[in-house]
Amino acid sequence: MSSGRFITLEGTEGVGKSTNLRFIESVLQQHQIRYQLTREPGGTPLAEQMRELLLANRDEVVADDAELLLVFAARAQHLERVIRPTLAEGRWVLCDRFTDATFAYQGGGRGLSKAMISQLETMVQRGLQPDLTILLDLPVEVGLARASQRGALDRFENERITFFEQVRNAYLERAAADPERFAVIDASGTLEQVQHQIRRVLEQYLQEQAGE
Amino acid sequence: MSSGRFITLEGTEGVGKSTNLRFIESVLQQHQIRYQLTREPGGTPLAEQMRELLLANRDEVVADDAELLLVFAARAQHLERVIRPTLAEGRWVLCDRFTDATFAYQGGGRGLSKAMISQLETMVQRGLQPDLTILLDLPVEVGLARASQRGALDRFENERITFFEQVRNAYLERAAADPERFAVIDASGTLEQVQHQIRRVLEQYLQEQAGE
Repeated sequence: MSSGRFITLEGTEGVGKSTNLRFIESVLQQHQIRYQLTREPGGTPLAEQMRELLLANRDEVVADDAELLLVFAARAQHLERVIRPTLAEGRWVLCDRFTDATFAYQGGGRGLSKAMISQLETMVQRGLQPDLTILLDLPVEVGLARASQRGALDRFENERITFFEQVRNAYLERAAADPERFAVIDASGTLEQVQHQIRRVLEQYLQEQAGE
Repeated sequence: MSSGRFITLEGTEGVGKSTNLRFIESVLQQHQIRYQLTREPGGTPLAEQMRELLLANRDEVVADDAELLLVFAARAQHLERVIRPTLAEGRWVLCDRFTDATFAYQGGGRGLSKAMISQLETMVQRGLQPDLTILLDLPVEVGLARASQRGALDRFENERITFFEQVRNAYLERAAADPERFAVIDASGTLEQVQHQIRRVLEQYLQEQAGE
């Protein structure tokens, strides 16, 4: 039995991740792919508790390195309990955010050393990387305007616009450095236009897999 | 204003850490030392929430590396919010467990790589080390018999005896490797005998500090 494929979806606030995640699911289902939908931070009961600690608005200032280590603690648990076992049994994993988000938010946004993030990535992933990463890209002001219509903001959504500019730039740098793995989707068009692009990326990837 | 001193108390289950922590406080008070009592994992509201996640008995198996990263996430927060600021204002820090416990429990007990623990130690401590570490040492069976009389056991106290043997050995190795920093106290005697030893260690340390 061949190993499943590991697909991640990335993007800043308001790019339409939730809607397009459901669309990706529908494409996988049309192609009879057995997959597990999951998300980061989170994906297991314990990792979801860590997610709550990360996202909660609190009086206590959270140290940047504490936040980073908590993200990777949740990731280690998620890898061990969900991602590795699912891939091992031949099912695909579709994950809402993964380590690229850490490079974007904690590296780009908070300015934490990328060397430190890479050290932790090596420690918990031990070589495992997503096979395909779909990055929904949108100018920051457009995304934040959309996100703010959703109601109460979490600790990250409350950051300033320069924070999100840095996050977006870090995402785009990651994508430029690894064009084989990344598909950057222009999320500023209509939903139909965006989903047309996503379908094309996925079906091309599926064809490549079938040809292997 | 000179920096405060950083004193840690270590030991396995049932060695009498709580009782002797209060005794150490009384000695510091007799010598008019201004100090902050704290503990790990924990020491800030957020770090205490991480402690709860670490100690809770749960159906979900906790990945060793997730546990380790969570310990260091709590430590990073504790260092930033409590330990460094307290030392900087000239007060001493008296901490119930610190990184030696991680080398003992996650390294010795769980068998996690010491190189990995050292990497994380460097990442969050950036050179900061305790000035004095008092290790209460006791044969494992004696300690566990005492601990079990306290009632319900947490996720660590529920480990098997070989786990605690490994923890104790790792503590003793750490102490042997750094005899300048460690004072190993034989905790098998009467409370009076144990506290006599602790007082001698502390008063000798205080004299050395005064002479500097």
